[in-house]
Amino acid sequence: MYYVGIDLGGTNIAAGILDESLKIVKKGSVPTGNTRHYSDIIKDMAMLVIQLLKETGISKNEVDSIGIGCPGTCDRENGVLLYTNNIKFDDVPMRLEMQKYLPLQVYLENDANCAALGESMAGAARDVSDSITITLGTGIGGGIILNNKIYIGFNGMAGEIGHIVLNKQGESCTCGRKGCWEAYASATALIKQTRNAAQKYPESLVNTLVNGNLNKIDAKTAFDAMRQGDSIGTSIVNEYIAYLGEGVSDLINIFQPSRIVIGGGISKEGDTILVPLREIARKSTYFGEGDVPHTQIVGAELGNDAGIVGAAMLWRGQQV
Amino acid sequence: MYYVGIDLGGTNIAAGILDESLKIVKKGSVPTGNTRHYSDIIKDMAMLVIQLLKETGISKNEVDSIGIGCPGTCDRENGVLLYTNNIKFDDVPMRLEMQKYLPLQVYLENDANCAALGESMAGAARDVSDSITITLGTGIGGGIILNNKIYIGFNGMAGEIGHIVLNKQGESCTCGRKGCWEAYASATALIKQTRNAAQKYPESLVNTLVNGNLNKIDAKTAFDAMRQGDSIGTSIVNEYIAYLGEGVSDLINIFQPSRIVIGGGISKEGDTILVPLREIARKSTYFGEGDVPHTQIVGAELGNDAGIVGAAMLWRGQQV
Repeated sequence: MYYVGIDLGGTNIAAGILDESLKIVKKGSVPTGNTRHYSDIIKDMAMLVIQLLKETGISKNEVDSIGIGCPGTCDRENGVLLYTNNIKFDDVPMRLEMQKYLPLQVYLENDANCAALGESMAGAARDVSDSITITLGTGIGGGIILNNKIYIGFNGMAGEIGHIVLNKQGESCTCGRKGCWEAYASATALIKQTRNAAQKYPESLVNTLVNGNLNKIDAKTAFDAMRQGDSIGTSIVNEYIAYLGEGVSDLINIFQPSRIVIGGGISKEGDTILVPLREIARKSTYFGEGDVPHTQIVGAELGNDAGIVGAAMLWRGQQV
Repeated sequence: MYYVGIDLGGTNIAAGILDESLKIVKKGSVPTGNTRHYSDIIKDMAMLVIQLLKETGISKNEVDSIGIGCPGTCDRENGVLLYTNNIKFDDVPMRLEMQKYLPLQVYLENDANCAALGESMAGAARDVSDSITITLGTGIGGGIILNNKIYIGFNGMAGEIGHIVLNKQGESCTCGRKGCWEAYASATALIKQTRNAAQKYPESLVNTLVNGNLNKIDAKTAFDAMRQGDSIGTSIVNEYIAYLGEGVSDLINIFQPSRIVIGGGISKEGDTILVPLREIARKSTYFGEGDVPHTQIVGAELGNDAGIVGAAMLWRGQQV
């Protein structure tokens, strides 16, 4: 039996076919063309899957189900994408539309949850049954995995871990609150912090590295400056990791998960982030006096494939 | 069949016998005498249970199990109380010691978790399977209930919800971090806030109500002053509830539980706390654009009995 996972993004649609060992046997992608009507976009999703099946010689009968990871809010039961930010989808009957082309069971899930399920099933947390994957991107996406399933809460909306407040009177967040973790530790926040520093310290390397063009600053700039010994770059990175660590410590105090997986582009910094993060968590988490094992903090392993793998595993159901 | 629950506190030992409808058919308490040797304290716990059984005419054979809620860290598997703050217990073999007097299955659990299980099984969350009970006392105790079981994490230490940071550079917390929720929204914190205000505004009613004796200030003082129209009392209470609401909103964003139950002495303020708390949560929690049901925020119902009831239900096991 095979499992199909689709990761619907604002820019690209990625899809993959997994075998029973959760290995991607074939994957591909096409542009989303996100201004088009949903029926055209979903048709392209289906055609991509059909093409992959053709190339691998796998028949539809050998496919157990199709899972779709979507940026936004899903009605899982009815297979409807209620709302998404990056594509103009509003109450889109994804399941019905897909089944026009592929008469299979179709599951929908939020994309951050899919990435977490992917890492949990086949990535950095594959050997444990409970983990939290934190995706550092435009925001902080999160997925909580308990008993090898996505924890969704009673109303299906759980896991908005980017929206916990670290500074009650702090930075404004897109959610309307002030001081959310996401406003300090997302890639967007890091870029903003780097730009502010570049403006404030024009002589610093963070400015030189982009030839004074602040629009060229990305989530790597401060790390690059730090690696070249720049004190401003170092202090941006340290402050960023301090906030990242604060939120990670909160999650450990609440969940004590076997593993916390750090994903998203910034996670490519690897030990540069992970080593200080572990040190912060060791100091800031609460273990009483007992000699108990501590949560491991690791980098994501599947990169962009995590969404495909997790989507393909949606047939496993959710944890409430 | 009957179930015995014991709540071991620093001051008193309370015990109760529950029937199958989870009603306490008989309860009683004796002083802990917390400076004594553990064998004497545990003997008194057993004698209290034996006395209650005698008074109700229930034989040991009719008792399924004994659960003990302890302030501190337990080794559930081996029935050992590893550490507790209020009593000088250190690696105490509670189960073995109890079984000297009552040869029954004996379960151990943290007392805040027991209170949460009690409210979940027979109190304010008895009609839902997932809830978080927040006990506002010396600290902020918490218990997370999923699938009608206490969620304990992979190492048994989960649920330290008082130790999530709301102000990264804020008030020092007993756990070593700065700005923990507990440092702002526990009863201890409220008393401290009231004392500070009484010192700063000696003409305010919070001062008059205790005849200028700051040691007489308790968690009710600011509420009493507010009810008499005092502006200082009102602002203490508003600020306190704002912090309480911030942490509650964080928990909703993470868990989306069916219900959040507010317990501890302060919860007796009822709607004075609950109404603004619901308003804060409504504004601060993240629901996307979907029309989904929201977490209900309610007061605890079982008061001090919650610990007994939860302890008696420990035979149900935990959720990891």
